[in-house]
Amino acid sequence: MQSKKPLILVTNDDGITAKGIISLQKTMAEFGDVVVIAPDSPQSGMGHAITINEPLRLKKGDFFKNVEAYSCSGTPVDCVKLGIYEVLHRKPDLVVSGINHGINASTNVLYSGTMSAAVEGAMEGIPSIGFSLCSFDSNANFANAMDVVRKVVKKVLENGMPKNVCLNVNIPDVAEGEIKGLKTCKQAHAFWEDRFDKRTDPFKKDYYWMTGDFVAQDTTKDTDLYWIEKGYASIVPTQFDMTAYAAMNEIENWNL
Amino acid sequence: MQSKKPLILVTNDDGITAKGIISLQKTMAEFGDVVVIAPDSPQSGMGHAITINEPLRLKKGDFFKNVEAYSCSGTPVDCVKLGIYEVLHRKPDLVVSGINHGINASTNVLYSGTMSAAVEGAMEGIPSIGFSLCSFDSNANFANAMDVVRKVVKKVLENGMPKNVCLNVNIPDVAEGEIKGLKTCKQAHAFWEDRFDKRTDPFKKDYYWMTGDFVAQDTTKDTDLYWIEKGYASIVPTQFDMTAYAAMNEIENWNL
Repeated sequence: MQSKKPLILVTNDDGITAKGIISLQKTMAEFGDVVVIAPDSPQSGMGHAITINEPLRLKKGDFFKNVEAYSCSGTPVDCVKLGIYEVLHRKPDLVVSGINHGINASTNVLYSGTMSAAVEGAMEGIPSIGFSLCSFDSNANFANAMDVVRKVVKKVLENGMPKNVCLNVNIPDVAEGEIKGLKTCKQAHAFWEDRFDKRTDPFKKDYYWMTGDFVAQDTTKDTDLYWIEKGYASIVPTQFDMTAYAAMNEIENWNL
Repeated sequence: MQSKKPLILVTNDDGITAKGIISLQKTMAEFGDVVVIAPDSPQSGMGHAITINEPLRLKKGDFFKNVEAYSCSGTPVDCVKLGIYEVLHRKPDLVVSGINHGINASTNVLYSGTMSAAVEGAMEGIPSIGFSLCSFDSNANFANAMDVVRKVVKKVLENGMPKNVCLNVNIPDVAEGEIKGLKTCKQAHAFWEDRFDKRTDPFKKDYYWMTGDFVAQDTTKDTDLYWIEKGYASIVPTQFDMTAYAAMNEIENWNL
């Protein structure tokens, strides 16, 4: 007998044991039947990577109470693909990814495994949402974010999603009830000014750790960074069509 | 004494020993001073992944005649970051990535390490181009693509690049002189209908290889897939602002 509840695929990039996904799968169970497929190790910064040069492992486990759950050796995007085609054998009604431990606003959407899982869901025509908590504190309280998660998920299940679009939701790290509201806005323009911490290993060979500063270049209002700073949760409708339509005329005029 | 020639950073995702980058760095030397920084192993499908959970290695080597070159343990995006901040200590005048062994048209731009390197260049404000040859044949002839590469690079060095944009150039695999022309166009809508080839290892554990069919959903003309099919090289101006501006009103009307 088919359940009438929505089928919700939950994933993340921090790995299946991360605090954020423990909170998220529990809240999602209020809305439907949940299946979790998440990486068996942290996959932050993996962007839209897929695993094609090595095999993938999938392991069913008792990760959560009363929830079907699998750990996967691959990336967040691999998890969505395996979920649809190998575990569920159908498209779920919703893909939710997160809650990421750290902000994924602005151009971080490109590096973020959390958001890439949501983008992959959108490419499959599934309403998909990536949630991130704007805190890198090891004691970050994901429960505070649940009010926003519930509001957004409820609306998406009611209204569906605009075609070929997913949502990038970033939630400020403030006590429950203190979030000022939710703002639909655009991705801020910013970039990472990288630095590499050069070290020498015990075998006298050099290696590098990537570090750096995030440099906001955008002084316009109505960006995700602007609203998060002001205490709002930001919602950026995010598309996978990367065509720069506004630039087409200029390039056509090169007469290539 | 500063050279007046443009400084060109060459990278790829097939790895520093791939045929495509051997051809590309040689052609780039016609236009400026070339530095190659490319992955030490194949990085296809790595998308915009960066390496943050483990250290990076960079190794100078005599990979090419008279060209400064480094292999890197990381992803194509890592190569661009290390290039700017650790090797060149300045932004190059041009980033070129490829020539990829295989098509990177349509939504493959999201999975492609080749294109993600170009997108990273654009995020840094550097004119950047990803080149791909539409052939998976192990005997693919990259020399045939050089006419298109020269034309595009020449125009970019003359005109610069529209702000926050890079180019995704896909070149059909036909004999030199048989390419019908170059078309500026949009990214086709398509997706991968994945299949997973499930196998059992010698230890009786299951594993999966990701395979699948690429399903074009776009019947509109003026897409990259449309023009490549017709024998043209496609040029898609590609941006890193993923905001779905057209969907903002609809989501604002949810009254979140």
